[in-house]
Amino acid sequence: MSHGYNGRILRVNLSRGRWTTEEPADSFYRRYFGGECFVGYFLLKEVPAGADPLGPENKLIFAAGPLTGVPVGGCGRHSVGGKSPLTGGFGEAEAGGYWGAELKMAGFDAIIVEGKAEEPVYLFVRDGQVEVRDARHLWGLKTLECEQAIRGELGDSGIKVAQIGPAGENQVRFACISNDLDAFAGRTGMGAVMGSKNLKAIACRGCRRLSLAEPEAVKEIGRWIRDNVPVATQALQEFGTSRVIPGLNQAGGLPTRNFQLGYLDGADKISGQTMKDTILVKKRSCFACPVHCKREVKVDEPYAVDPRYGGPEYETIAAIGSNCGLDNLEIIAKGNELTAAYGVDSISCGGVIGFAMECFERGLLTRRDTGGLDLRFGNGPAMLHMIEQISRREGLGALLAEGVARAAREIGAGAEELALHVKGMEMAMHEPRWKQGLGVGYVVSPTGPDHVHNMHDSNFAKQGPLLQEMKVLGITEPLPVDDLSPAKIRLLMANNMWIHFLNSAVCCFFVMFYGLVGLERLSRLVNAVTGWETSVSELMQVGERAANLAQCFNLREGFTSADDTLPQRFFTPQASGPLQGVAPDADTFHKAVATYYEMMGWPQGVPSAGKLGELGIEWVAPLIQPKP
Amino acid sequence: MSHGYNGRILRVNLSRGRWTTEEPADSFYRRYFGGECFVGYFLLKEVPAGADPLGPENKLIFAAGPLTGVPVGGCGRHSVGGKSPLTGGFGEAEAGGYWGAELKMAGFDAIIVEGKAEEPVYLFVRDGQVEVRDARHLWGLKTLECEQAIRGELGDSGIKVAQIGPAGENQVRFACISNDLDAFAGRTGMGAVMGSKNLKAIACRGCRRLSLAEPEAVKEIGRWIRDNVPVATQALQEFGTSRVIPGLNQAGGLPTRNFQLGYLDGADKISGQTMKDTILVKKRSCFACPVHCKREVKVDEPYAVDPRYGGPEYETIAAIGSNCGLDNLEIIAKGNELTAAYGVDSISCGGVIGFAMECFERGLLTRRDTGGLDLRFGNGPAMLHMIEQISRREGLGALLAEGVARAAREIGAGAEELALHVKGMEMAMHEPRWKQGLGVGYVVSPTGPDHVHNMHDSNFAKQGPLLQEMKVLGITEPLPVDDLSPAKIRLLMANNMWIHFLNSAVCCFFVMFYGLVGLERLSRLVNAVTGWETSVSELMQVGERAANLAQCFNLREGFTSADDTLPQRFFTPQASGPLQGVAPDADTFHKAVATYYEMMGWPQGVPSAGKLGELGIEWVAPLIQPKP
Repeated sequence: MSHGYNGRILRVNLSRGRWTTEEPADSFYRRYFGGECFVGYFLLKEVPAGADPLGPENKLIFAAGPLTGVPVGGCGRHSVGGKSPLTGGFGEAEAGGYWGAELKMAGFDAIIVEGKAEEPVYLFVRDGQVEVRDARHLWGLKTLECEQAIRGELGDSGIKVAQIGPAGENQVRFACISNDLDAFAGRTGMGAVMGSKNLKAIACRGCRRLSLAEPEAVKEIGRWIRDNVPVATQALQEFGTSRVIPGLNQAGGLPTRNFQLGYLDGADKISGQTMKDTILVKKRSCFACPVHCKREVKVDEPYAVDPRYGGPEYETIAAIGSNCGLDNLEIIAKGNELTAAYGVDSISCGGVIGFAMECFERGLLTRRDTGGLDLRFGNGPAMLHMIEQISRREGLGALLAEGVARAAREIGAGAEELALHVKGMEMAMHEPRWKQGLGVGYVVSPTGPDHVHNMHDSNFAKQGPLLQEMKVLGITEPLPVDDLSPAKIRLLMANNMWIHFLNSAVCCFFVMFYGLVGLERLSRLVNAVTGWETSVSELMQVGERAANLAQCFNLREGFTSADDTLPQRFFTPQASGPLQGVAPDADTFHKAVATYYEMMGWPQGVPSAGKLGELGIEWVAPLIQPKP
Repeated sequence: MSHGYNGRILRVNLSRGRWTTEEPADSFYRRYFGGECFVGYFLLKEVPAGADPLGPENKLIFAAGPLTGVPVGGCGRHSVGGKSPLTGGFGEAEAGGYWGAELKMAGFDAIIVEGKAEEPVYLFVRDGQVEVRDARHLWGLKTLECEQAIRGELGDSGIKVAQIGPAGENQVRFACISNDLDAFAGRTGMGAVMGSKNLKAIACRGCRRLSLAEPEAVKEIGRWIRDNVPVATQALQEFGTSRVIPGLNQAGGLPTRNFQLGYLDGADKISGQTMKDTILVKKRSCFACPVHCKREVKVDEPYAVDPRYGGPEYETIAAIGSNCGLDNLEIIAKGNELTAAYGVDSISCGGVIGFAMECFERGLLTRRDTGGLDLRFGNGPAMLHMIEQISRREGLGALLAEGVARAAREIGAGAEELALHVKGMEMAMHEPRWKQGLGVGYVVSPTGPDHVHNMHDSNFAKQGPLLQEMKVLGITEPLPVDDLSPAKIRLLMANNMWIHFLNSAVCCFFVMFYGLVGLERLSRLVNAVTGWETSVSELMQVGERAANLAQCFNLREGFTSADDTLPQRFFTPQASGPLQGVAPDADTFHKAVATYYEMMGWPQGVPSAGKLGELGIEWVAPLIQPKP
């Protein structure tokens, strides 16, 4: 067996309450690698076309990669995937924290969850063994209480728990899966899939040490990362991900009031600097990571925030903050705690509430719909109330728990143009009128407008260290943010394939990419862990394979190029502010999407048989044949 | 300017007798790299569609790469290209020796020769300066005499000479360009292009030392190659390229009697072992190379061979030996000397003579046609006579100097099926009924059935060191020689892209690939020479770019998928011998060609606009649009 893997995949059938293990061949591991690429493989092989995402036919896959659990910064992540109840297509999200590493130490590379338990259960995975345990007493608990209960009853405070909160139990379509309380497989509604299976949690504990092909070489790269990445990411460490807020605001790229604007007057009040100066009590990290970009905050009454839930990231601050017209960091921190406690994706949740606020201001929703709530932009308590309502599916929350696309269809006339989504998923907090390459990325991403599967192209707009990283892929020229030329699309594609690889590895892109580890050094780390003599070239192929599997899953589920567009709002400039007058032309934008697909070997978005063959996954071709 | 390059390209217009230099941007060098990729670029940019290959509109490009002249084994090669008078398409061939390194030391990365001199001339390139010198007194000289004359009149025995012999002067369509007397840009008729321009030779001399980004790292890789490659290529060093003859003969893969058979009873008499035991006097090398695979032989009367011409390689031994039914090594060595002295490609020449012999045996040519010569297989003196006749375009030689395709059309009924060629170029000496992946390679190669642009797939038929090399490209499984599965085509494609890169670099694949240098180490050598932070991924893109440029040149010149087949003979098993009963099925074969094209992103052989965009050469797309 290749080093870095356990060589064992756990399959749990909840309908039968039984588990088995499988030991795939080395060639399987090398080809499908882990994380997102595993998810794509298993979804296409095992979930029948047209399956109900919330039915027992869907599967939920927890997948680590060869690097997960290797004691090197950036290697503490895992991926969770299944058919998405939000998009109806490829659902997958990655999470940091410690759970993925513990899964590996517990003896497995991945878990495939099948069927549906009759009553709530949780899994306890320890040292290669599995228990399916009653969870009826845990059902309804928020994540902190649930983790405490599991650790208590198993008598081990070192147990790592991945779990759903009440939102997942209630099958909120954008419920997330939380682990270690402050890390989330956030997007595409994997928490709802877990809830639909009556699976409350997976607790992991293990003492297996991963075998490494060249332990000394691994250590050396680990030391390099420890010594260099914190320097390259110094601002990230000091101010967290929300360090970017002032810059975005200045550029007109801070999503505000359901993306009506790109700046917020009080933006500095919600910045990473302000957080550091006010509510921050500690910096947290994921497994083995020297960066410590995660936050821990403490807020007193009236918006008392429990520090055990960590603190808000940029995406959350923008989604439930500026995008809801809010500039009160304490309220945002409270909202962050609620999304964590209830287990709901803070990005989609903020998108949904921002949408509802705009509907309210435009008279498409009234106080009758909101139960008397004055659901205007800037109303912090209303935002907090809506997080709870959504998670509980109460009142207007029942409608909003379906996501903006379904809610808008329900609300009717005028609402659909306020529903900002691609393929049914709400936007990540990056402005596609400014970052136009990322806008194309939103459209071509198999999971919809997802910031973890995409390019942050402001970083390539000047000759800088990050562009230097891309040179090993033959990308040598800096390109403007608002460029949609073929050269820019080529950059987007190269970037995205590497991101798909990172999500298969499963590695943190803050460390491995923005931390300037470099593609060659990461390739050497893969060598040193696995013992394979690999290269950036092979790893890029892994990324491309993951992207092709995901795209083919979407095609099999009925997506077409008609789904490949942005909401109309993003072709219309903001009415005021720094970005006034700037928006991509719709024709140019759609030509850029077509160019991306052509460059991928996906004419009209459909991977050619040749491309699938080039990647050694020709078995996929028949799955996307048009039905006769 | 990037290290490894001079940053200067020499342009010589022979019609005007003037020269200029150009200094392309760094980005040009990084994208188009050198060698074959340079050739593709300049041919598409500068040679008008439909140009007469033997007219002044055609250009002749001599191109080095960043590694050419770096004092490391395998880095002594250069490429020569132009529109081929043999195929009418992309013409290009690489040569070893010392000339390419001397060109770099003389201050240039490439020479573009334009127009046509009124009278024979030669160029003297020294230390960044150029002289266009009278060559009337050299016209008609064989290569040894010509080199001596040039060195004598310039008073420098260290001058390196690339030149044509009488065959090039006579525009034999498969005339080669010789350098250092024993190295040849052999295939696709570049010698005829040079002859058509009245350019007899290019003499180079320089004392410029290439600047290297990391001289110590270059030295270290050079030492590694010196210490390890000769071990990995021990048989090549001891017995030369013809070490393979016994094995091929045993497998039925030794082209014999115009590919009617795959074995020769006296094969051992022409093997590398026999050469070593009999006529070998010395092993020779190219610039800086520790392998010494080249031979120097001495033969006395009646077939006296001048050792200064070196000795025959495998391809020559098979082409003018077994393929002509000959097992007399002294006669073959004499034939090798004649091809070198007259400057004719020994592979095509052997192919043409073998064709003529079969025509003669089948009564399609008679003694009247041959001037009384008994042109049967196995008639050594007749073979030698034909080399001279062809080179002088005398008698039957005038017809055969046109190549088998044109000659067969002239001879008429029955001859065409004996004319073994793809796209008009004669076969390299590898049996496509056995090496079936290579057979596909013959068809998809832009230069026709060329062994330097192709895969020798017997090497991938078992889990061995060479397969290990390919793992960095994600090729992990051994595959049989006679396999045309998608997995095999994937291997072929990956191999070919790396070969296209090596031909752009311009590196020797014996050293860099068969010598087990490894793709990662070569990528580090490119880093250490140029100072670019590159990767196997970027270098594979260079190879793919070269392949796409060449393919597009062919399309622009009118090739279609109808040209993408093998002669019928290769779909019919040999009548006897070890390979009896073995041949690819024509349908399976053509499906494999289609699969290759699809994997390349070339549906029906036409690079998609997306593929060209992916490679950053979108400017090529309009050139291959079908005419309205």
